[in-house]
Amino acid sequence: MGRTSDAKNKILTAARSLLEQRGYSALGVAEICKTAEVPKGSFYYFFESKEALALAVIDEQWAAERRDWEGILRGDAEPLERLRQLFEATENRQRNGQESCGVVVGCMFGNLSLEMSNQTDAVRERLQQIFEDQVDMVEATITEALGRGEIEVADPREAARSVVAQLEGQVLFAKLYNSTGQLSTLWPNCLALLRASRPQVAELA
Amino acid sequence: MGRTSDAKNKILTAARSLLEQRGYSALGVAEICKTAEVPKGSFYYFFESKEALALAVIDEQWAAERRDWEGILRGDAEPLERLRQLFEATENRQRNGQESCGVVVGCMFGNLSLEMSNQTDAVRERLQQIFEDQVDMVEATITEALGRGEIEVADPREAARSVVAQLEGQVLFAKLYNSTGQLSTLWPNCLALLRASRPQVAELA
Repeated sequence: MGRTSDAKNKILTAARSLLEQRGYSALGVAEICKTAEVPKGSFYYFFESKEALALAVIDEQWAAERRDWEGILRGDAEPLERLRQLFEATENRQRNGQESCGVVVGCMFGNLSLEMSNQTDAVRERLQQIFEDQVDMVEATITEALGRGEIEVADPREAARSVVAQLEGQVLFAKLYNSTGQLSTLWPNCLALLRASRPQVAELA
Repeated sequence: MGRTSDAKNKILTAARSLLEQRGYSALGVAEICKTAEVPKGSFYYFFESKEALALAVIDEQWAAERRDWEGILRGDAEPLERLRQLFEATENRQRNGQESCGVVVGCMFGNLSLEMSNQTDAVRERLQQIFEDQVDMVEATITEALGRGEIEVADPREAARSVVAQLEGQVLFAKLYNSTGQLSTLWPNCLALLRASRPQVAELA
């Protein structure tokens, strides 16, 4: 055997951690292998290039986050309540990350979007697809709430994109200020963006 | 003489362009000097380090953008109209950038926030200060609109931060998708976030 999936997992774990700490550009294959404690030959056995590894890390991260998004947004709760749960989960994820590694790491997809989108087409396309998936799920939830007369939006897809944009912007601030406090505004801001009817807003008080 | 401010400007211009294209981590002093066509000695004559140069580029960029922000947000128009002009200027800046260099470069401060905030304290603090300045200016405008009974917000500072977060999130998407189309939602989204009274919203139609 020699090269086991254990080595592959070690590389993925090291790469995720280094990507979160320092971004993609500063990442080198030698350093990934050193951190993962695997020989360089192992790297190229599993991954064609640094870009291929980045795509694998992104896919793994989205597979995990996607389970959360689907579990919440396709769950049984009422549509607006599902959106509230999504923001709560986002806040908890960032807070747990901060507790375990000392800093708010932010959103890997947002981080890489701003660092890499002028650089590699394959990564840019993957990140676009992930945000489209997120917007799809939020749009479906918004459309349900719209059907129930709970919100007022002219274009559910555009509204969904604005909700995800607000999330990314607030997570950017959480990372820059190393503070998750502001993330509690995601839910009231979402209600405002969707022009939720007054009874919904009153529940906040 | 020998070393003129011309060399300094060449270094700043090269650094800004390389920072926008590839971010901070991947940037090297040798490459900056090569792009700027100045000898390496000149670099260290003007800048103590790569970090010092990054701070100078950030300051120069904010000095220019700040003039736009102040010109608009401290102008004579009515407060909500000033916010509309700010978003229009943002959209125009991104569109002009795309026309001149082929890609939407996004917001330098947002890009560096996500790339660098885990890295250098000096840069992180400078970026925090810039966003505080932006939030200050938006907050003052929101407070005026609030006094005129045109909007409904409980906490003008939190509302201002949410408006800037929405801007950063939408500019992130503009960069990732290399498209400025979605930026036209900044204005209606701002009115929604501020719970602008109906007559204000009706003016959109």
